[in-house]
Amino acid sequence: MAGLDLFFFYGSTYTYLTVMRVETRAAAAGVTLRWRPFNVRAIMVEQQNIPFADKPVKAAYMWRDLERRAGRHGLGWAGAPPYPIDRELLANRVGQVAAEEGWCAGFTRSAYRAWFLEGRALGAAGTLEPILAELGQDPARVLAAARSEAAAERLERETDAARALGIFGSPTFAVGSEIFWGDDRLDDALDWARQSAAS
Amino acid sequence: MAGLDLFFFYGSTYTYLTVMRVETRAAAAGVTLRWRPFNVRAIMVEQQNIPFADKPVKAAYMWRDLERRAGRHGLGWAGAPPYPIDRELLANRVGQVAAEEGWCAGFTRSAYRAWFLEGRALGAAGTLEPILAELGQDPARVLAAARSEAAAERLERETDAARALGIFGSPTFAVGSEIFWGDDRLDDALDWARQSAAS
Repeated sequence: MAGLDLFFFYGSTYTYLTVMRVETRAAAAGVTLRWRPFNVRAIMVEQQNIPFADKPVKAAYMWRDLERRAGRHGLGWAGAPPYPIDRELLANRVGQVAAEEGWCAGFTRSAYRAWFLEGRALGAAGTLEPILAELGQDPARVLAAARSEAAAERLERETDAARALGIFGSPTFAVGSEIFWGDDRLDDALDWARQSAAS
Repeated sequence: MAGLDLFFFYGSTYTYLTVMRVETRAAAAGVTLRWRPFNVRAIMVEQQNIPFADKPVKAAYMWRDLERRAGRHGLGWAGAPPYPIDRELLANRVGQVAAEEGWCAGFTRSAYRAWFLEGRALGAAGTLEPILAELGQDPARVLAAARSEAAAERLERETDAARALGIFGSPTFAVGSEIFWGDDRLDDALDWARQSAAS
């Protein structure tokens, strides 16, 4: 069966469009999906890739484009959410625990819903507990695991894997060593995964 | 009738995908098209927006993505062409003359074909004459007009118009004051133009 790796970062804005629809789209295409949160911020700092922080005109466009695209995909929109978020990478470390334990898809959708539709800055005090509780996870256990050395190391390993593939942004879809950057490349990536599996 | 302004720069790589197919796509959508070359380089320098020059990983991805996308759209591909090009803006000034006189669509397709499929660095000595001659234009006349103050001023006015709309990249589609950046937003822009005309 065709496989697709979704490399993403809790804190990337366009990733909202992807995480809310990728599972349905991949299933419809017969493509298995692997959720791989990684630290795109570290890679962007290394590469001096600063798309928005010092670019107000481009940042203003980004929010408008996201709003229109959310509408196009039938996703909710409640205005620009807090940004940037998760400076201490706690949400991204919870993502490691969730990926390790197999509940990353549901966590990621809930996290992005909380961020984009309820304006909660993921990673800030008290933002992750209710999301985890609603998913039937024990917040204390998960947050302790997220704060462990193991979660930090897993995040670093996944970031190394992304870097080795030439990944520089979130979301990026990988089919083997072929990478597709940006939510607007989802169809291309699914097509590539299907063709790779068929050949 | 719905109208779409195409703001673009001779020297932008992704613009290749747009100029080779936009006229057909706009006609099929019943949308009139205005070709508006502008100096995106000046705006990007102003905004410290350097997407590729100092970012080898992202630049390598860009060429691979362009190759795949060209294939997807049934366009030719002959490897990465010379880049950057048109440092002295001569091709962009010829574009002003062509837009003023109403033959910008054909010139732009021929120019991008020469650049992407024959590896000619637009604006370099001798690159524009054969393109113009093939279009039935007198190269000497057009190049003299392109080197005139009037063409430089027109380029500046179009750049001012783009800046006022919040444009920061090429290609950008504008429907009134609504802007859509990137070749991958062509469908969104055409839909917007149609809906604006209908409402």
